[in-house]
Amino acid sequence: MQELSSLEQSVGIEFNNKDLLQQAFVHRSYINEHPEFTMPHNERLEFLGDAVLELIVTEYLYRNHENPEGELTSWRAALVNSKMLARVGEGLNFNDYLLLSRGEAQDKGRARQFIIADAVEAFIGSVYLDQGFEVAKNFIDAYVLNHFNEVMEKKLYEDPKSVFQEHAQERQGTTPRYEVLEESGPDHSKHFRVGVYLENELIAEGEGASKQDAQEEAAHNALAKKGW
Amino acid sequence: MQELSSLEQSVGIEFNNKDLLQQAFVHRSYINEHPEFTMPHNERLEFLGDAVLELIVTEYLYRNHENPEGELTSWRAALVNSKMLARVGEGLNFNDYLLLSRGEAQDKGRARQFIIADAVEAFIGSVYLDQGFEVAKNFIDAYVLNHFNEVMEKKLYEDPKSVFQEHAQERQGTTPRYEVLEESGPDHSKHFRVGVYLENELIAEGEGASKQDAQEEAAHNALAKKGW
Repeated sequence: MQELSSLEQSVGIEFNNKDLLQQAFVHRSYINEHPEFTMPHNERLEFLGDAVLELIVTEYLYRNHENPEGELTSWRAALVNSKMLARVGEGLNFNDYLLLSRGEAQDKGRARQFIIADAVEAFIGSVYLDQGFEVAKNFIDAYVLNHFNEVMEKKLYEDPKSVFQEHAQERQGTTPRYEVLEESGPDHSKHFRVGVYLENELIAEGEGASKQDAQEEAAHNALAKKGW
Repeated sequence: MQELSSLEQSVGIEFNNKDLLQQAFVHRSYINEHPEFTMPHNERLEFLGDAVLELIVTEYLYRNHENPEGELTSWRAALVNSKMLARVGEGLNFNDYLLLSRGEAQDKGRARQFIIADAVEAFIGSVYLDQGFEVAKNFIDAYVLNHFNEVMEKKLYEDPKSVFQEHAQERQGTTPRYEVLEESGPDHSKHFRVGVYLENELIAEGEGASKQDAQEEAAHNALAKKGW
């Protein structure tokens, strides 16, 4: 468990109200396990921070690009989705500051990524309340909008399945094929593991709560594997 | 066609850039019919205004209510949905300012309501760009958040079918029944007319692009008819 002052230093923001900063890192599971802990969890801050993030990203796109709003909408989605926000939080070592239940602390997979992404939104909410719009904007410029060029270059705003198919056809003259490798869990909480193949070669795998999610992750991983 | 200066007067905002104000009222259909018209339609402004509205409503709810974010989310939805925004725009006579194609100008039903709701978001985008956050906030306070008490009293954040059922059971000891009265249109653009009944009495009708939409409208109209 790191001191939050090290986070303040790395982002260059000194909070007036340290409780607000702390609250951004309190996961619901921690409260359940520590009934004596009096601070609320971070979900209300996340509700606020999500709207702050959305406006600041929207305004950036509106002011800098004349494209139709349909395109801006998909670029925005690529900047604020949980995958991107998890990367932002991991880059700032959010893992070191989170207050989690022992159970959640052990799960370092997809569930943790969502928790980190949510904490990034909550942190933005804290910055906005404690420091105001301009400081929140500067943070988002430096840690979210700095990914904009990458979003455009790697076409992260496109469905990864379409992108992978495009590359596979252009470069190898073949069309990707997806296969369910494993299906588990009860009806209300299914889990799929899917493989994506070029010809008969398994290129990558992906997992998710639906076949579609698992396929998208597989395509995403395949793009990384191939360096496309 | 009213002069936009009358709108500036009624909301107490004088625009620096009158083109920004005008653009909020340019519907896509008008551009198609007037290729010589050089101003863009209002959809990019709507994209921006939607995010401004969302943050300002979110912040209001966050600051004034300690409820969990799930409740705040449904209250917010009731404040910013197209039905509410259409009422806001109608109250400000937005109909008199819209630039529409002749075809759109004739349709005064549901399609027009969506156009008005979109114009309200676009107008908020214009106010934000021309006048800044505080003036946009004041407008939203006066014309959107003023509906908050009504949202809470009439439980507009709840599904109207649940509310109508609750009242019907409490007051008349019966459960509403929905029946499709008419189904028309091709597969990709179906239209349903649905009636809601208590015992065998037709209380109200509703229309929509899905049975669910039509039922919700019927329940909404039934609540009004019954004064519940």
